[in-house]
Amino acid sequence: MFDSSVYIERRSTLSTKMEKGFVLLLGNNNVPMNYLSNTFPFVQDSSFLYYCGLDLPDLNILININTGSTTLYGIDQSVNDIIWEGESFSLKECAEMSGIEIVKKSDSLFKDIERINTKNESIHILPQYRSDLKYLLEKLLGKSWKNHISFDLIEAVVRQRSIKSDIEIAEIQNAMSVTEIIHKLAMMTAYPGRKEEDIIGELLGVVHSAGLRFAYPTILTENGEILHNHSHQNILREGQLLLHDGGVESKLHYATDITRTFPVSGKFSKIQKSIYEFVLNMQEEVIKKLKPGVKYVDMHILASKICIDGLKSIGLMLGNTEDAFESGSHALFFPHGLGHMLGLDVHDMEALGEDYVGYDEVTNRRSQFGISYLRLGKALECGNVLTVEPGIYFIPTLIDQWNQKGMHKEFINYSLLESFNNFGGIRIEDNVLITKNGCINLSETIPKTIADIEDIVGRESY
Amino acid sequence: MFDSSVYIERRSTLSTKMEKGFVLLLGNNNVPMNYLSNTFPFVQDSSFLYYCGLDLPDLNILININTGSTTLYGIDQSVNDIIWEGESFSLKECAEMSGIEIVKKSDSLFKDIERINTKNESIHILPQYRSDLKYLLEKLLGKSWKNHISFDLIEAVVRQRSIKSDIEIAEIQNAMSVTEIIHKLAMMTAYPGRKEEDIIGELLGVVHSAGLRFAYPTILTENGEILHNHSHQNILREGQLLLHDGGVESKLHYATDITRTFPVSGKFSKIQKSIYEFVLNMQEEVIKKLKPGVKYVDMHILASKICIDGLKSIGLMLGNTEDAFESGSHALFFPHGLGHMLGLDVHDMEALGEDYVGYDEVTNRRSQFGISYLRLGKALECGNVLTVEPGIYFIPTLIDQWNQKGMHKEFINYSLLESFNNFGGIRIEDNVLITKNGCINLSETIPKTIADIEDIVGRESY
Repeated sequence: MFDSSVYIERRSTLSTKMEKGFVLLLGNNNVPMNYLSNTFPFVQDSSFLYYCGLDLPDLNILININTGSTTLYGIDQSVNDIIWEGESFSLKECAEMSGIEIVKKSDSLFKDIERINTKNESIHILPQYRSDLKYLLEKLLGKSWKNHISFDLIEAVVRQRSIKSDIEIAEIQNAMSVTEIIHKLAMMTAYPGRKEEDIIGELLGVVHSAGLRFAYPTILTENGEILHNHSHQNILREGQLLLHDGGVESKLHYATDITRTFPVSGKFSKIQKSIYEFVLNMQEEVIKKLKPGVKYVDMHILASKICIDGLKSIGLMLGNTEDAFESGSHALFFPHGLGHMLGLDVHDMEALGEDYVGYDEVTNRRSQFGISYLRLGKALECGNVLTVEPGIYFIPTLIDQWNQKGMHKEFINYSLLESFNNFGGIRIEDNVLITKNGCINLSETIPKTIADIEDIVGRESY
Repeated sequence: MFDSSVYIERRSTLSTKMEKGFVLLLGNNNVPMNYLSNTFPFVQDSSFLYYCGLDLPDLNILININTGSTTLYGIDQSVNDIIWEGESFSLKECAEMSGIEIVKKSDSLFKDIERINTKNESIHILPQYRSDLKYLLEKLLGKSWKNHISFDLIEAVVRQRSIKSDIEIAEIQNAMSVTEIIHKLAMMTAYPGRKEEDIIGELLGVVHSAGLRFAYPTILTENGEILHNHSHQNILREGQLLLHDGGVESKLHYATDITRTFPVSGKFSKIQKSIYEFVLNMQEEVIKKLKPGVKYVDMHILASKICIDGLKSIGLMLGNTEDAFESGSHALFFPHGLGHMLGLDVHDMEALGEDYVGYDEVTNRRSQFGISYLRLGKALECGNVLTVEPGIYFIPTLIDQWNQKGMHKEFINYSLLESFNNFGGIRIEDNVLITKNGCINLSETIPKTIADIEDIVGRESY
């Protein structure tokens, strides 16, 4: 973890932003896979991690906004625990590492909450996604525990976590160095006849050998048109594109989220090249414009229009670009958002509510299919880290649905589309840090141009 | 999954064993890691898998014991689901694959349960380990849902699942062939200076490239004395032992659970050799005796006495073997059970309650430290698959505790023990199928003798 001063400062900033009362942050627990003692790998809650850094289960913290002091609740290991699991940090050591003053047994939380309640002071909590913690909150705060979910707290946390400090950016860069290795490795070792899951296994091994883990389940598929495809059963075929969306968590759990799409056989076909260049153009034009104050929804619109112009140039879309955009017809090809915040979560802070993270009073989420999936719309600030991930896909199910409904016939050339049934999808995704006057692409060393990709793909496959 | 006839027969057998009423089996759901849409890999409940084979989230089945018919509850994918996740099986297809007659929407379960309740018929459920399912049961069956946990049902399920059919054994053998590869690979590629997590990463990659997963978090450590050690931060040192406890799940999720212990540098020291031979002897003498009717608790006792005799021969234990055993003093060195059932769970059926799986009316669990951890005590039957995993460990925390309390001084040579502080631990674990007249060791091709191990360790390390 970082030095204790980092967490002391973060909690102190939070306390300053909140007016009064108490902030209760629950740490995650282990989750049983198929019985109590066979658990998934431990994943700590990202807000808990942000404010105290403690990467162990069964811990909670209570921050007294009035006094600024924090209490850590937990249980020390028994001798039996030590025999079975080895010696871990004592509760006191945990508190010291996190700069926390007060240490209590887990059970004491009940009494302390009761005491706060009798004084009629407010207890602020964050939205919950784990069932066991909902149970705990019901026990702690009663049936109406959800009333304690605090928009002031969410807002304060989002404000703080949205601006990454130098040590956080360094963590993302650490994760990026391994991310670069696995993306290059996937490219170098792909060849027609290799199974998708064979590549994933190799990448997973490299990441775990480095003592790290994937930030999310890797997407590595010839069926790139399935946006979150977690099947890896295909055997790579000559002429197909392989889409690889894979990210890594640093030791302190900062995530990367990178996508590359490349031809299995090392050479793009003419039509693959055209569409790849449209996507690359969507991405590069956006990255050129990124700086504080730019609204990300405007970047999504910019990318959409470049998409339309590109598809028009090869006859797949028709008509006036502005009208096509307003109609939402391009979302047939680009049905998701341009990007999202990145940090301790791969969709950073998504547990707090997408709209609180990506939108604000002046920028509301739009409802039209496609742009409605945009997770980040509001104006960017220096210190934001985000993904820029345009894509163009040919999704048979969606094309059939729209065609049958006769949707947007004036903008979409459905008959020409028939020959794209097996095309798949192309996405190109980088991670970008917003700086004072522009941005830094944190993943620019991962091959992306057609020339670089054709140079590296299959290099180690024989 | 297996052919639908397998599941039809299993449910029919279950229905015959239960008298009347309904059996409600809940399938597992996805569990969020750090926010709702970023989930752990899906792990299905093993009893659900046993009775219907459906390896997808958000499904439940209700078996009508009176009529023998089964209803599958779930939700079909929307077009949006298909765009994001790809096309999955329809509910109707799932039912067909599982030989289920009736298909309903998830919500209908509420009405159906209500109808059963008004008829005053019994609803049998199994014990629960997932918080979200406890929530669901509270909604379905009310506050006192735990009253529906049915010992008749547990008993019937344990009886059925304890006897493995040929197709189940074939699945375990499939998993074993990959398990053999990773155990040999760990041995071949170990060398002083290599990091534990580097080896684990490589093994994980091999398993995932084969489209499989670990059956439980791998233990691979120089600190083998920590029984469930999941830290992999050590750099292997000349002269130390490496304990590797790793198992694989077959495609249909049948598990293996194998442990080998070997010298990092390829050669056992004299004292390592002695203690290794005690453990091997404990294991081989047990395996020789395994057959239907043998009580596994007696095998634990046999192994314990061989352990005592071995440690006496090098002066670490003292006195009469029978007295030493009765006192429980050997548990300082062998503080866990000899083994457990193996199948769809690595500790098979542990979610149903260890005592229901491993004990019965004539064999009760003992309370003495050490043997109290024995998960399987009762008489074995043809078709059982189980682990045989004796070990000898030198656990500083436990030795200190016992020594300070002056425990079992007449049987333990504490002063000689001081030189064993850094020894670590040795465990040897095989998976065994009980046959009509004896047993088959399913893992006998994984190197185990001192000669075989010294021959293979480090072979590929340069």
